[in-house]
Amino acid sequence: MIESIALQSVGELADGISNVWILTVSFLIFFMHAGFAMLEAGQVRAKNVANQLTKNLLTWSVGVVVFFLVGVGVSNAAAGAGFETPFMAEADAGTAEVYINWLYGAVFAMTAATIVSGAVAGRARLRAYVTYTIALAAVIYPVVIAMTWTPEIGLVQEITGTGFTDFAGGMIVHAMGGLAGLTAAWILGPRMGRYNDDGSANVIPGHSMTFAVLGTLMLAFGWYGFNVGTAGVFTSSGAFNGAVLGRVAVTTTLAMAMGAVGAGLVAWAKTGKVDTLYVANGLLAGLVGITAIPHIATWWGALAVGLLAGAQLPLVFSFVENTLKIDDVCAVFPVHGSAGILGALAAPFVHHNLQVGILDAFIAQVVGVSVIAAWTVTATAVVWYVLKMLGQARVTPEHEQEGLDLSEHGVDTYPEFGDEDGVVADGGF
Amino acid sequence: MIESIALQSVGELADGISNVWILTVSFLIFFMHAGFAMLEAGQVRAKNVANQLTKNLLTWSVGVVVFFLVGVGVSNAAAGAGFETPFMAEADAGTAEVYINWLYGAVFAMTAATIVSGAVAGRARLRAYVTYTIALAAVIYPVVIAMTWTPEIGLVQEITGTGFTDFAGGMIVHAMGGLAGLTAAWILGPRMGRYNDDGSANVIPGHSMTFAVLGTLMLAFGWYGFNVGTAGVFTSSGAFNGAVLGRVAVTTTLAMAMGAVGAGLVAWAKTGKVDTLYVANGLLAGLVGITAIPHIATWWGALAVGLLAGAQLPLVFSFVENTLKIDDVCAVFPVHGSAGILGALAAPFVHHNLQVGILDAFIAQVVGVSVIAAWTVTATAVVWYVLKMLGQARVTPEHEQEGLDLSEHGVDTYPEFGDEDGVVADGGF
Amino acid sequence: MIESIALQSVGELADGISNVWILTVSFLIFFMHAGFAMLEAGQVRAKNVANQLTKNLLTWSVGVVVFFLVGVGVSNAAAGAGFETPFMAEADAGTAEVYINWLYGAVFAMTAATIVSGAVAGRARLRAYVTYTIALAAVIYPVVIAMTWTPEIGLVQEITGTGFTDFAGGMIVHAMGGLAGLTAAWILGPRMGRYNDDGSANVIPGHSMTFAVLGTLMLAFGWYGFNVGTAGVFTSSGAFNGAVLGRVAVTTTLAMAMGAVGAGLVAWAKTGKVDTLYVANGLLAGLVGITAIPHIATWWGALAVGLLAGAQLPLVFSFVENTLKIDDVCAVFPVHGSAGILGALAAPFVHHNLQVGILDAFIAQVVGVSVIAAWTVTATAVVWYVLKMLGQARVTPEHEQEGLDLSEHGVDTYPEFGDEDGVVADGGF
Repeated sequence: MIESIALQSVGELADGISNVWILTVSFLIFFMHAGFAMLEAGQVRAKNVANQLTKNLLTWSVGVVVFFLVGVGVSNAAAGAGFETPFMAEADAGTAEVYINWLYGAVFAMTAATIVSGAVAGRARLRAYVTYTIALAAVIYPVVIAMTWTPEIGLVQEITGTGFTDFAGGMIVHAMGGLAGLTAAWILGPRMGRYNDDGSANVIPGHSMTFAVLGTLMLAFGWYGFNVGTAGVFTSSGAFNGAVLGRVAVTTTLAMAMGAVGAGLVAWAKTGKVDTLYVANGLLAGLVGITAIPHIATWWGALAVGLLAGAQLPLVFSFVENTLKIDDVCAVFPVHGSAGILGALAAPFVHHNLQVGILDAFIAQVVGVSVIAAWTVTATAVVWYVLKMLGQARVTPEHEQEGLDLSEHGVDTYPEFGDEDGVVADGGF
Repeated sequence: MIESIALQSVGELADGISNVWILTVSFLIFFMHAGFAMLEAGQVRAKNVANQLTKNLLTWSVGVVVFFLVGVGVSNAAAGAGFETPFMAEADAGTAEVYINWLYGAVFAMTAATIVSGAVAGRARLRAYVTYTIALAAVIYPVVIAMTWTPEIGLVQEITGTGFTDFAGGMIVHAMGGLAGLTAAWILGPRMGRYNDDGSANVIPGHSMTFAVLGTLMLAFGWYGFNVGTAGVFTSSGAFNGAVLGRVAVTTTLAMAMGAVGAGLVAWAKTGKVDTLYVANGLLAGLVGITAIPHIATWWGALAVGLLAGAQLPLVFSFVENTLKIDDVCAVFPVHGSAGILGALAAPFVHHNLQVGILDAFIAQVVGVSVIAAWTVTATAVVWYVLKMLGQARVTPEHEQEGLDLSEHGVDTYPEFGDEDGVVADGGF
Repeated sequence: MIESIALQSVGELADGISNVWILTVSFLIFFMHAGFAMLEAGQVRAKNVANQLTKNLLTWSVGVVVFFLVGVGVSNAAAGAGFETPFMAEADAGTAEVYINWLYGAVFAMTAATIVSGAVAGRARLRAYVTYTIALAAVIYPVVIAMTWTPEIGLVQEITGTGFTDFAGGMIVHAMGGLAGLTAAWILGPRMGRYNDDGSANVIPGHSMTFAVLGTLMLAFGWYGFNVGTAGVFTSSGAFNGAVLGRVAVTTTLAMAMGAVGAGLVAWAKTGKVDTLYVANGLLAGLVGITAIPHIATWWGALAVGLLAGAQLPLVFSFVENTLKIDDVCAVFPVHGSAGILGALAAPFVHHNLQVGILDAFIAQVVGVSVIAAWTVTATAVVWYVLKMLGQARVTPEHEQEGLDLSEHGVDTYPEFGDEDGVVADGGF
């Protein structure tokens, strides 16, 4: 009798620890929305700040409800398990884990969604953006999950026979969002005045470096939840999962640091100055780079992947800006897209203990990256192309010029600063 | 021998898990002060920002000491248990839980206190505000606790025979703060220029939408601690409390999301624009709405309560502004007051498994809301009325016009922006 | 068999709880970097904001890699244990705890490092600052650890026979950083225009009180991790460590609160106004003051230490400004230095249960403070003096006048505000 009480309690205790950890990291990952909001708001013009903030608020608010009602069911159906959603499970006793795991999945899904808003800033209509968010939360992201992070055998493993390695979503969440953003920005076209008639680019600086860096550091804080939180507290056999937790904590830290260093060094080499925004975005690119592989990377692999993810940022940004001529306002492709792809492809080469052949592992990564990229780009292009054909994708030139804050939201973000006169109803400024 | 060690350890482990969870969520709830500071600072004029920030800093600093030395004792005394405070228990061995639970109670108390500062912004004297904060932390809030969240039988249950349902303080903390704010703003009178001679209202926009939205998202992050953290890790019988934790996590998320959607839709219907500040405050109203009932609401109940809490915001704000003619600067009544009342009253109708009669349950909620409202409004009105009679409630018209930052704090929040010339001692801007 | 499973699981569970707590608080402490970035950015001129933000980003990014590769090994070697680093332990099975503990140590180390950037703001060259950060992370801070927080017998205990009491780094982390900052600022000299020819000081106000207060509250949030997180979940005998966790939570809260009150009261007594920045920095000084002793202080001791730590802030700041004539831009010495020393020296006098003689305990504290101060000031002075002799310490007067953002980073933090014209490529503001 005594032993059975003890054993029962041990099981309850383990459930308690594991789920409290999942909840805590889910809160941290939710906080990344605040980080994205600040990072993106800081990188847009003062006349478009409220628009960017509204998009971030609605990405979460609309997206999470759609993901609850539809997205999870589509993901399960696409994986061949039938349309099952968390609310359909409410009646039975298993609600606890279904509900906690739903929130955990939802904060990852919404991270993918919110990345897109940074690419289409300054000219996408609010209704077009919200429409795309619904499509992403209901179908586009759920299908990616069905191909990879599914209890069923995913598409990648079906094709190659080897599982696709993406621990916390370097490809599945971040590069998916970065590719979607790039595609949407490409179809929308650049902001007015972004390119001259001869094809040369003008820089349109964001309105506040301080908010951008604040957002960067808030994101890094939440990212510890994103990566370390993907490691469970216990292994499947019930032992403490410290080897994985410790490795993820260290590789995440080192890659983040080297991302900032890598981007800063390349910027310094190119211009003789250490551009603040490259350092900040490089830190994020380092985090994106390691996110697929923090559980398997060696410490030197984390340093190398972080450095490369940071160093590629100024180069890929320039390629997107000057060669592709796509106006990716907040550099979401270099930060989330190419850095995420780089990290996923690096998996076999920095693995501390690879159990399959390096070529097999690499092929699985190439296939996984390719399948996710093809689906994301195609589905995103279709949605935005249809919106464009309907004349709903983009605000009018007049509205773009006066700013989306006024035309879409009827507000002035900073009524007392800048060129406009503040309201003086309270006796003057 | 072996079994007794195991059993002892299991008890210690359970204590460890439960208390680490309480501490973690207490930190998250403390962080809501940073959220309130930003939300409120963003919604006031640039000339009053430092005043608002100082009030937020002092709400916490003065309030928490008063609550430690006096408030807890008053609460215990009012509930009939004698004047017992945490520091009086310090000598004995039970310090641990008393102290950890004190912090947990204190962060809820200070949330109620800080809400008031948003309503009286721009004209309340600092000493009047601090005096009221002391009264709230020492007496007003502790008496509310004694009526409801007390180990003794609370007043509401004494009257109706049915317990008052308020899981995490939708009524006890938020609506209490919202009602106190509305009352204080009513007695103080509106800011200069807020109303014209014909009674029509002027809009006085806040100085930074970005800070307001930042504060909103910081609050939402902390709110997960507020709501989910109110659920213990284990049930009273020692089992994992996952059914409640999971339900609270999901209903909190859904109501928050629908609050933003509801406020945005009503604003859109009224003006054709999706007002950013309504979306942000709607998200908060959705959170307030669910806070009394996240542990019992069905998923569709959470969606409905969130939607209604958001939708009522623009309507109640307009009623307060145009009919009551109260200058509730940061909309604390529509966000915290009416939304909190709505959620508390909705309890019987969205309950997943109501064990008492729906009418009995509803009467208990009506009585609880009424008693808390009557006490809060009366006590708050008395304090502010006395301050007003003493000529201490409000700054002079000259000080209000030049801004409270200068008159009360001797500082300029943004010396390099706006109309004023910056100090140029370091060689010019 | 049943019992052995139970016992094994209990050990794994305890490891799980303890390490999840360490990880969670490590994330909170990491978030303090965001707090420092905002606090310091708010206190510098608009023309130097991006420089300050870049320094904060690089302190973490460069410092943490150096601490990983070199610092830990130097600390172990200086304590007489040989040059051992976490990555050298990677091969063996013990990686988990080594890696988790490394992150935990690293976030403390980087806190000390980042404090310095606030003192040297507005004139230190980026390369000089980064060079010093490398020296701090590789040698200066590791040697302090070797003298105190080492598993070997530290230098202080060797000298006095009594251990040095510094629970979470009030002296070891904060005062060390504050002293290093003061020393660096002294050697660098003041900003242009900070002092007139007659030696009188000019105030150069920061560009945004809002960011400064935001940073303050973010720091306070992270500080709960810093202090409470230093208490393990379990005692060495496996019991729940609630008495310590509870005491630390309460004393940290009370000292923080009284720090804000103390600084506000002194400012009010001196000028008749409640200076917002003193209240905010006083709150931080209260936290610094308690950080060495939260586990042993009585509740009244915490109130007293917090009050004194806050009250000394305006006085010490004035002494540094007007007597020492050192331009400590963000007041890092009064906030982190003198407040940390005060708290460490107060240990014997507010102890709830002192086991050694009060004089012995006080001598150990005086020796510990003196040794750390002497080493930190000397090592810091040498590094900055060499940099100064090489002409690398400080930007040119022209660059200082136009601002470091432009000269060091090629960016404009707020291109649409202030005197400069914004870029209008997108059709005007």
